[in-house]
Amino acid sequence: MSDPVEQLRRSWIANANAWTDAIRNDRIESRRTVTNDAIVTAALEQHARTVLDLGCGEGWLSRALASHGPRVTGIDASEPLIESARALGGAEFLVVGYEELIDGRATLPSPFDLIVANFALLDDRTQELLAALRNVLAPNGRLLIQTVHPLATIDGAYEDGWRTETFAAFPGQWPELMPWYYRTLGSWLRVLRDAGYEIVDVREPLHRDRRVPASILFTAKP
Amino acid sequence: MSDPVEQLRRSWIANANAWTDAIRNDRIESRRTVTNDAIVTAALEQHARTVLDLGCGEGWLSRALASHGPRVTGIDASEPLIESARALGGAEFLVVGYEELIDGRATLPSPFDLIVANFALLDDRTQELLAALRNVLAPNGRLLIQTVHPLATIDGAYEDGWRTETFAAFPGQWPELMPWYYRTLGSWLRVLRDAGYEIVDVREPLHRDRRVPASILFTAKP
Repeated sequence: MSDPVEQLRRSWIANANAWTDAIRNDRIESRRTVTNDAIVTAALEQHARTVLDLGCGEGWLSRALASHGPRVTGIDASEPLIESARALGGAEFLVVGYEELIDGRATLPSPFDLIVANFALLDDRTQELLAALRNVLAPNGRLLIQTVHPLATIDGAYEDGWRTETFAAFPGQWPELMPWYYRTLGSWLRVLRDAGYEIVDVREPLHRDRRVPASILFTAKP
Repeated sequence: MSDPVEQLRRSWIANANAWTDAIRNDRIESRRTVTNDAIVTAALEQHARTVLDLGCGEGWLSRALASHGPRVTGIDASEPLIESARALGGAEFLVVGYEELIDGRATLPSPFDLIVANFALLDDRTQELLAALRNVLAPNGRLLIQTVHPLATIDGAYEDGWRTETFAAFPGQWPELMPWYYRTLGSWLRVLRDAGYEIVDVREPLHRDRRVPASILFTAKP
């Protein structure tokens, strides 16, 4: 895979229909049973009036949060996913990629009281991205990240690096493989620290049956 | 096990000879190949003039650090281990238990620039202990903890709770089982936060062959 960031971008365009179908029909068990509730609960606890949903995909989380009152802006680099999101509505949805946020080119209705990234920090530029997001986060705002748990996805070596999601365990047709960047726990903590955040909470919701973590949630402040 | 803290205390008295033998003959592979170097390196990076070695056991780490210049005080609740430590010397060794630190009854040559706990936070009162230690830590001091990695020791459920070390994998005669309190990653981070510390670094040294973490090291400041 010569350029995993480019392949990652392409996968979310090519797989947009399969993804939208998987999410809207609740076909991913860990999301249905554990992680959807975990991110919604943690986000609503912040009582934010304005929320940025990073990598919002087809928009379910933006809608879920907006239904409780805040003004939610969902952004995603994938045009077909933002089209899916707009088709259901319920929040503002914009085609914005992470490069535009890192470069400061994106125009967003900032500041946000809360920035949420739900399994959406998939490449190796997360530190630059999170540092740039401080410019659109309110001074007392919070950053909430849910991501795969380094324990649950160790897959050989406990070392940062690109991995490949084949979607073999997902129903439906997935035209493109998705590269994603695995981070150790220490790497996540360093990225947050070096991007200028302090961690205020960490949660590790467990799979219902297996009693191992389904994900990890970091709450951080600038 | 009706009172694991009492059994833990008893185990370090009954197992003192076996422990001293295991350490002084380098019989624990993960210590020999990874974690001893990790804690010494991380401790020396702090350039402390005064060090408190919590749960020092037979004293190897106190001696290793003192040989580089700082004044090191090693404390342990086990009298026979402190006797072993004093027999080799190289640092000041005191019989002091964690209750005495929590209660503020211990008299120590504080303040310390560095407090080190190398696989020594084994019970369920760690938050109270770490909070009390702020009274003997210099304002710009650092707390350095090396402990078992929650990933490497998951053993069934990823949940805080007492576990039992049988020493079956250790050479020698071990008269008493050792209870120890397993903490998830989130639990370690919460304990540090709620005891009044901010994490400044996290390291996860890997086993040489298996590429999974041999331990986790937290560096924190008050």
